[in-house]
Amino acid sequence: MTDFAATKAKFILPEGVVYLDGNSLGPLPKGALERARRVIEDEWGEMLIRAWNLAGWMDQPRRVGDKIAPLIGAERGTVVMGDTLSIKMYQALAAALTMRPQRKVVLSDAGNFPTDLYMAEGLIQSLARGHVLKTVAPEAVEAAIDESVAAIMLTHVDYGSGRMHDMPRLTDAAQAAGALAIWDLAHSAGALPVDLAGCKVDFAAGCTYKYLNGGPGAPAFIYVRPDYLEKARPALSGWLGHVAPFDFDLDYRPARGIERMRVGTPPVLQMSVLEASLEIWEQVDMTAVRDRSIELSELFIREVEARCPALVLASPRDPGRRGSQVSFRFGHGYAAMRALIARGVIGDFRAPDRMRFGFTPLYIDEGDVRRAADILAGVVEERAWDRPEYKKREAVT
Amino acid sequence: MTDFAATKAKFILPEGVVYLDGNSLGPLPKGALERARRVIEDEWGEMLIRAWNLAGWMDQPRRVGDKIAPLIGAERGTVVMGDTLSIKMYQALAAALTMRPQRKVVLSDAGNFPTDLYMAEGLIQSLARGHVLKTVAPEAVEAAIDESVAAIMLTHVDYGSGRMHDMPRLTDAAQAAGALAIWDLAHSAGALPVDLAGCKVDFAAGCTYKYLNGGPGAPAFIYVRPDYLEKARPALSGWLGHVAPFDFDLDYRPARGIERMRVGTPPVLQMSVLEASLEIWEQVDMTAVRDRSIELSELFIREVEARCPALVLASPRDPGRRGSQVSFRFGHGYAAMRALIARGVIGDFRAPDRMRFGFTPLYIDEGDVRRAADILAGVVEERAWDRPEYKKREAVT
Repeated sequence: MTDFAATKAKFILPEGVVYLDGNSLGPLPKGALERARRVIEDEWGEMLIRAWNLAGWMDQPRRVGDKIAPLIGAERGTVVMGDTLSIKMYQALAAALTMRPQRKVVLSDAGNFPTDLYMAEGLIQSLARGHVLKTVAPEAVEAAIDESVAAIMLTHVDYGSGRMHDMPRLTDAAQAAGALAIWDLAHSAGALPVDLAGCKVDFAAGCTYKYLNGGPGAPAFIYVRPDYLEKARPALSGWLGHVAPFDFDLDYRPARGIERMRVGTPPVLQMSVLEASLEIWEQVDMTAVRDRSIELSELFIREVEARCPALVLASPRDPGRRGSQVSFRFGHGYAAMRALIARGVIGDFRAPDRMRFGFTPLYIDEGDVRRAADILAGVVEERAWDRPEYKKREAVT
Repeated sequence: MTDFAATKAKFILPEGVVYLDGNSLGPLPKGALERARRVIEDEWGEMLIRAWNLAGWMDQPRRVGDKIAPLIGAERGTVVMGDTLSIKMYQALAAALTMRPQRKVVLSDAGNFPTDLYMAEGLIQSLARGHVLKTVAPEAVEAAIDESVAAIMLTHVDYGSGRMHDMPRLTDAAQAAGALAIWDLAHSAGALPVDLAGCKVDFAAGCTYKYLNGGPGAPAFIYVRPDYLEKARPALSGWLGHVAPFDFDLDYRPARGIERMRVGTPPVLQMSVLEASLEIWEQVDMTAVRDRSIELSELFIREVEARCPALVLASPRDPGRRGSQVSFRFGHGYAAMRALIARGVIGDFRAPDRMRFGFTPLYIDEGDVRRAADILAGVVEERAWDRPEYKKREAVT
């Protein structure tokens, strides 16, 4: 049994705030600041360059990867940290295309987070070998898989609607057609159970500043299926992915195993804060997180639909088909979200009209959900969005 | 006049240590920890997701880039932060090759830091269009520039020997032959004056954890020549390089200006610590840094050559032809460096036999240099390296 009151006590949340945006940036775990102090004062300050050995900085990307592995159903030694999700998706796709040289289609869907599509566009344009990025409706992916497809590249849980793809089924379908399956776990890792090994996923990547609470700019991770670890070509072949970086060879030879997906110097400070944040997961069962997240989101949907009929559910109604976030369409959504935030309930807005709310049981309980629904009902009832300062668009929504 | 006693007082250095390895990892500035606390507690903890607007996180890569620009002779708006030096070199080279589609040679030299060569290898292999990475001796670069060369890709100051290329001359030679010039400033930015604009350099990139004291894993920067800002194709086309990231378009359209070289979510925490560290440079004149660095390194060379004849200078003797670091060849170099570090003088070792010492006047003064030379002379005289624990290789040298 996971004790969610105990996990909640491990976060610092501002007084009076209900935080329903952990799907964008997880809140601050209590241990994070002390870990940052330790890295800055005791390691950087005192050990200086020697900390690469003494404080274990060099092994950190693999060590932290091994801590994330059980959260996504991955084997030890198949996950490594570094860079950003965009970069890791690029590496995964570049490796996949090398493994299917005769096939020219990268299949994705219109619900994918745009950066994955943009990175794929950039790669395809660089390759200039007639590849095509084919983007279909999410529900049309399976039917679009054929023998022209080199790889499917999908985000498991849609950033906007929370709609969840059937990972085992689509992975099977892709592989049955001879394609590879690449999954973006941005809204999955730490939100719900994922079984990369069980699904025989080929490549996956994810970020750690959302549900894994690693802090702003925390590094990404990449997963490579075990039998590809010695085969996958790291297109971004940096020196820390070399088999012997400190030999300073002039020619690149990939490291054995997942280390080859490392590129340059790891973000030690960010990764250390992440490492501290990951300690919370040691006492957490992902199935319990999933069950509780569904309870909370179902409660929120019931409350909002009963009290705010102008808001239209934009997420799948079946909780088994969505991740841990819920969106509502509302014409005044942008300003209404600003008004809601001003009253202490923090969600976010996604164009064109979606108000988005994340339900992360590590620090959200039933009382928070009821309170959020109450305040939202008040905003709608009072037309609190109807003020000029709420309508002015900010740089980041 | 730069007051180097005042800059030295802005660093926290361990008692009894002479730190001659700022060319690998700069030491801890006093303001760094408080800045980390502020980002973690006041911004991440209190503002949560709103900090992207309220704390200026979204603009930070450009804002910090503009602080680095004057240190490398770059115009405002031509430098942006993110990722690692390896990734930024890849972006620069990919953009350059797109601008010279008929030319197939990337010209570099055997003194380049290997990751630049590895990243170029990876790019060339991905492109599969007959490009060749041609690696000549450093002194042979100029003669090897001809009309087959798409770009020269060079590290300004050799990581091992400190040898410095003639940036204006080689940039001119490349451009006269119709090639582009890409410079790696890893051992230049913060070490000596660089004039990117004056040299009309096409692309440059550098790291910030060495002479700019940004801390372990601090992000890299990339420079793009002003007249290419609207033309350079970002092969790594991530969503934060999109003209309107929060429109969530399905198609990539590059941002205007240097922002297009952004990729994914910036490492906010690392970059904030870097931003605090950069405040030291507000009172520093780079010409004074260069002059003082030469004085200190000349003193060290004189002392070592007089007292340790077994050590052979591996750096150019003419200080005008080297950066701010000095290397000596010594058959027992690895163990001798370990012994030296055990006595409080921290330099480092680069294979096969080089003992490397950096002279960074921001926190190294004449007394430190004399003390380092004394202790090194003691190590050599006593054959202090001749102990098994010093011969055992560590993971990171």
